Amino acid sequence: MVKLGGSVITDKARYRSFNQESTDRLTREIASSGKQVVLVHGAGSFGHLLAHEHQLQRGYLKDSQRIGVAKVQQDVRDLNREVMLSLDRAGIPATSIPPGACALMEGGLLRKMDLGLFRRYLDLGIMPVTFGDVVLDAQKKFGICSGDQLMYLLAKEFHPKLIVFCADVDGIFTADPNLDRGASLIEKVDRSTLESIPRTSRVTDVTGSIYGKLESMLSLAELGKTTMVINGLAPGRLASALGCAKVKGSMVVGGQA
Amino acid sequence: MVKLGGSVITDKARYRSFNQESTDRLTREIASSGKQVVLVHGAGSFGHLLAHEHQLQRGYLKDSQRIGVAKVQQDVRDLNREVMLSLDRAGIPATSIPPGACALMEGGLLRKMDLGLFRRYLDLGIMPVTFGDVVLDAQKKFGICSGDQLMYLLAKEFHPKLIVFCADVDGIFTADPNLDRGASLIEKVDRSTLESIPRTSRVTDVTGSIYGKLESMLSLAELGKTTMVINGLAPGRLASALGCAKVKGSMVVGGQA
Repeated sequence: MVKLGGSVITDKARYRSFNQESTDRLTREIASSGKQVVLVHGAGSFGHLLAHEHQLQRGYLKDSQRIGVAKVQQDVRDLNREVMLSLDRAGIPATSIPPGACALMEGGLLRKMDLGLFRRYLDLGIMPVTFGDVVLDAQKKFGICSGDQLMYLLAKEFHPKLIVFCADVDGIFTADPNLDRGASLIEKVDRSTLESIPRTSRVTDVTGSIYGKLESMLSLAELGKTTMVINGLAPGRLASALGCAKVKGSMVVGGQA
Repeated sequence: MVKLGGSVITDKARYRSFNQESTDRLTREIASSGKQVVLVHGAGSFGHLLAHEHQLQRGYLKDSQRIGVAKVQQDVRDLNREVMLSLDRAGIPATSIPPGACALMEGGLLRKMDLGLFRRYLDLGIMPVTFGDVVLDAQKKFGICSGDQLMYLLAKEFHPKLIVFCADVDGIFTADPNLDRGASLIEKVDRSTLESIPRTSRVTDVTGSIYGKLESMLSLAELGKTTMVINGLAPGRLASALGCAKVKGSMVVGGQA
């Protein structure tokens, strides 16, 4: 299972961890691995911003949010389209499964998704691709379903041998490596790492608050799956990780180290 | 319930009944009607051609079809994207529900689709939009789900007051009005009309074989719903139909006239 992420919120500009060139390289690395992969990607920064503007994460507040729901869904589908076209260029038969069209949340938590569909596509040799989206919510009418929530649900169902998060830095750092020259890579991440980092959005892996992200990664690792964060911008790392070779990055380990 | 259709198969060119200008006019007509609408559209001619090339309608035959499944799905989503952008320009909050991501067929017949999702979006005031697509099949692994099959399932569930098919001619004719100057509009269409037309693709409403299309329309009418075929290229006709005004076109009537 591979997640392509994360994006940062910048000055209303569309910022993405991976441009077309690096996305194409990553999809080629997946293709050459020959591995069966479920692919998840984030909503992209523009989707995040627009969602924030319309307060979609709070659920239904007023009718004027409806056009926000539609616009954010369209925006994340546009990003998804770029990933799908890249998979096609890499020769990978893939199908897009937008959570907004098939999932249901409850109070902000992903509760229901037709995973049988994912299974059927996998059995056919067609790669299911899903992504962070605006999703219906049985309590709040709608909400934001993150790529990380999808990763968790999919991992519980499909028991992947390996879970790889492709970031745009080498892994989890003691500080933001883009701002702090003293930042060092944490090769083994566990719950004690989580407790040691200050709860601030300054300390980040360039995907927003690292705290919440690490929480989800630890939950995944605690399912007993090998979970790692690698640099998707470094050519060959994803291919090596999928080939089970040792690769620079952070291993996420369930429980205390 | 409105269907925007149909497309003809031409010389590998992408032919569509409605270009951006007419699609924008149609979505504005829907917006100005103030009616709650479920929108269905076809797969477009390019999708049809590609599907035919890979024999997707026959279900799984060989692995090489997988890339065909992916390509046709991408193609119909590209067409759907244009419709969604048009709805956005018309100020209609809408959501795209691709059958390939949420439906299941059985031996070529649409069997399962999460209609609760459509209901929730409708209740929120967000228009559900779906379309002809490559869909998983419990027997044949995959197949083609037509917009007409979707219309039937949705009509059975949602009991719409009105079902409108937007064609690119005035309705159902005694012959192809683009080829035969003697062709006349059939204002009331019933099972006897079906029996009277020769089973040939020459006699068409410019949407391929009219025979199969008429069959589906009659099934819809036999659910007891007012079903009509109008010319989507004629400005104001969809708006009039949605406003329950008398409009030029063909009424489809269940049972013998």
